[in-house]
Amino acid sequence: MKIRVQSQPVHVPGFRFAGVHCGLKQSGARDVALICSDVPAAAAAAFTTNRVKAAPVLVGLERLPKGRLQAIVINSGNANAYTGDDGLAVARAMCATVGHALRIDPELIIPSSTGRIGVPMPRARIARGIRAACAALSPGGFHEALEGIMTTDAFPKYATATLAIGGQRVTLAGMAKGAGMIAPRMALVGGPKGAVPAGHATMLAYFLTDAAASAPALRRALALALPQSFNAAIVDGDTSTNDTVVLMANGLAQNPRLTPGARAFPAFAHAVAAMMTRLARMVVKDGEGATKVIDIVVRGARTARDAARVADTIARSPLCKAAFFGGDPYAGRVVCAAGYSGATFDPGQLDVYLDDVQVVRRGREIVGQVERRAAAVTRRAEFTLTLDLHAGHGEAFRMAADLTVDYVRFNSAYRT
Amino acid sequence: MKIRVQSQPVHVPGFRFAGVHCGLKQSGARDVALICSDVPAAAAAAFTTNRVKAAPVLVGLERLPKGRLQAIVINSGNANAYTGDDGLAVARAMCATVGHALRIDPELIIPSSTGRIGVPMPRARIARGIRAACAALSPGGFHEALEGIMTTDAFPKYATATLAIGGQRVTLAGMAKGAGMIAPRMALVGGPKGAVPAGHATMLAYFLTDAAASAPALRRALALALPQSFNAAIVDGDTSTNDTVVLMANGLAQNPRLTPGARAFPAFAHAVAAMMTRLARMVVKDGEGATKVIDIVVRGARTARDAARVADTIARSPLCKAAFFGGDPYAGRVVCAAGYSGATFDPGQLDVYLDDVQVVRRGREIVGQVERRAAAVTRRAEFTLTLDLHAGHGEAFRMAADLTVDYVRFNSAYRT
Repeated sequence: MKIRVQSQPVHVPGFRFAGVHCGLKQSGARDVALICSDVPAAAAAAFTTNRVKAAPVLVGLERLPKGRLQAIVINSGNANAYTGDDGLAVARAMCATVGHALRIDPELIIPSSTGRIGVPMPRARIARGIRAACAALSPGGFHEALEGIMTTDAFPKYATATLAIGGQRVTLAGMAKGAGMIAPRMALVGGPKGAVPAGHATMLAYFLTDAAASAPALRRALALALPQSFNAAIVDGDTSTNDTVVLMANGLAQNPRLTPGARAFPAFAHAVAAMMTRLARMVVKDGEGATKVIDIVVRGARTARDAARVADTIARSPLCKAAFFGGDPYAGRVVCAAGYSGATFDPGQLDVYLDDVQVVRRGREIVGQVERRAAAVTRRAEFTLTLDLHAGHGEAFRMAADLTVDYVRFNSAYRT
Repeated sequence: MKIRVQSQPVHVPGFRFAGVHCGLKQSGARDVALICSDVPAAAAAAFTTNRVKAAPVLVGLERLPKGRLQAIVINSGNANAYTGDDGLAVARAMCATVGHALRIDPELIIPSSTGRIGVPMPRARIARGIRAACAALSPGGFHEALEGIMTTDAFPKYATATLAIGGQRVTLAGMAKGAGMIAPRMALVGGPKGAVPAGHATMLAYFLTDAAASAPALRRALALALPQSFNAAIVDGDTSTNDTVVLMANGLAQNPRLTPGARAFPAFAHAVAAMMTRLARMVVKDGEGATKVIDIVVRGARTARDAARVADTIARSPLCKAAFFGGDPYAGRVVCAAGYSGATFDPGQLDVYLDDVQVVRRGREIVGQVERRAAAVTRRAEFTLTLDLHAGHGEAFRMAADLTVDYVRFNSAYRT
């Protein structure tokens, strides 16, 4: 399995796409997208755990438990969040418009929205856009749809892969958007409780495959992929009202149907996880104002939860993130953040590494020669910060953006 | 009781002060301070709850339970944090040097440090500075001592007050430092467990009075004052390894001794709380790069803990703090932060106010006319953001700085 991200036509057998402009974005860019399978597909999804859930998320939560979807209708430029009953009515109407135009059961359609929170949705305009999108659906419309879901993204985020399942060639493609308000903590719909650790956009991501797979297999693959991918991505630490990841499998590849126990399941789950991690990393790299991606690895924690506390706290610490931006290997700030994370450990046992350069050994900062090598690491566009707490076997992984002057400038501009 | 903050000589009967330069600060500014009572005083203190505690904090934790102190020796320019056993030896030696020079039992002396984490302390240099400070002690040395505790502070923070207790005139004076790494979560030493809710510097603050008071009365006054003062102050959300607040009462005013049950206790506790709140507010106002102080009031939460979750999350949210900087009354970010705080509430019941301008009513953003008035509020240097969750009677209060371009610039400069 090889993931490709070249700018080339993306086709997934049995899926059609569209992206149009209806006027939500003043720039004239596409702001309505449509993803549609020719036949009903098995589906799994995860949505934000924010208590304030956008209207499209509420509709998705109603419809996903059945594990079947045929279309996703998305708008950018307005989050349809904190818009009350009117917003909920618009979210349902978006699906109904698609259902009517394409003769699909609206219960097999979910909406997604991204943009400003608290702004009423211009219902007639969106309906017009959706009808235009239905008319524009095409197997080659992937990139138009992708443009339609973007907001402050500096570049489009997508990937495709092919793999063999039971002798059949299967295609998997994914698209994602997200740059700010990125700290997804999504929970799986219909999956086992607690299967998805809390991690940390409006982040929207859609993964489409022609594989034949059961809904439980898709849920399991998503549950395995989320903690290491989107739930591990932290730009700013603000968890959106709209975060959504959907995985759809329409079965047209006619492989032996994937179930969680199938022999080919691990290979499929691995492909899903690898693609989600790749796209989540692109989201962090495109973080508003971000200049760096820092992989934070915590190991040796008393528990996995303690490891997550340490990794999350560092990934959210303004002082650590500003030091990353400045290329300053200031281990003191990292140690301080670990200290107030709430995790239980002996500061005298802590080891800290920047890539392969150890900067703290058994609780003491290593000074002198090492600083020049450590500073060379922190000037890289990507590096790994590893903490070993020597308190147990708990591990956690996060991908964090740095905190930059441009992030603040951008997000303090009136009504971004 | 009137709190004064004019730049004038500060005298507290029976206390002497000194501030000298020993070379920890390259600027040549004073970097060693000494506060000394002529007689042993009753004392209470609270220290950081960070698991990584600076060496002086560890010494303070050993000595405070006895409730008696005579002197505090402070250095700035080096936090003596994450410096291992050597650091602990230096912290003890600092006290021993004072004890030897002034013939005070070292067990009645505590050290404090602020500055960079993880840097070995230059022992001989500090000892020289401390001996010079002992020689320079004077009743009029308050401002020199205050200069000696400052690091990135843009202005000195202090206040004095006099009050009558049992017919006797009592003086109370306080000094504080702190501008970055400000999110104290301090716990009282020797007080009732859980008396001090977690709040959010290196923040050092010393309060001195000639009142006669028992150690339990001082602990009680500190426990009452902390949640609304230093533990409510959030600049960046990073909780320091060194946060320290000390309250000393040497009894020279010869008032009837204050106990927690004394008739005059409430007036004394009120004066302590008012002064601590005033100084904590100065710390937030002087937050690195900060241009605004936002008072965050959360009420109607299911529990006080839920209220604290909402207030803390907003006070730490990069998106909310950047919007405050930009003067953007973007209620959507505030609502989103409340939503992911972990508090239980019905988003459809939420009310949000900017000063007296309601911007969200029962879960719906109020649009139109109100925006201009709301924007006028958010352009103020100080304003109050109030959330009413309508879920119970839990309340919380925080004082937060905005997140500015200058904060990031300052904290990303190599080795600030």
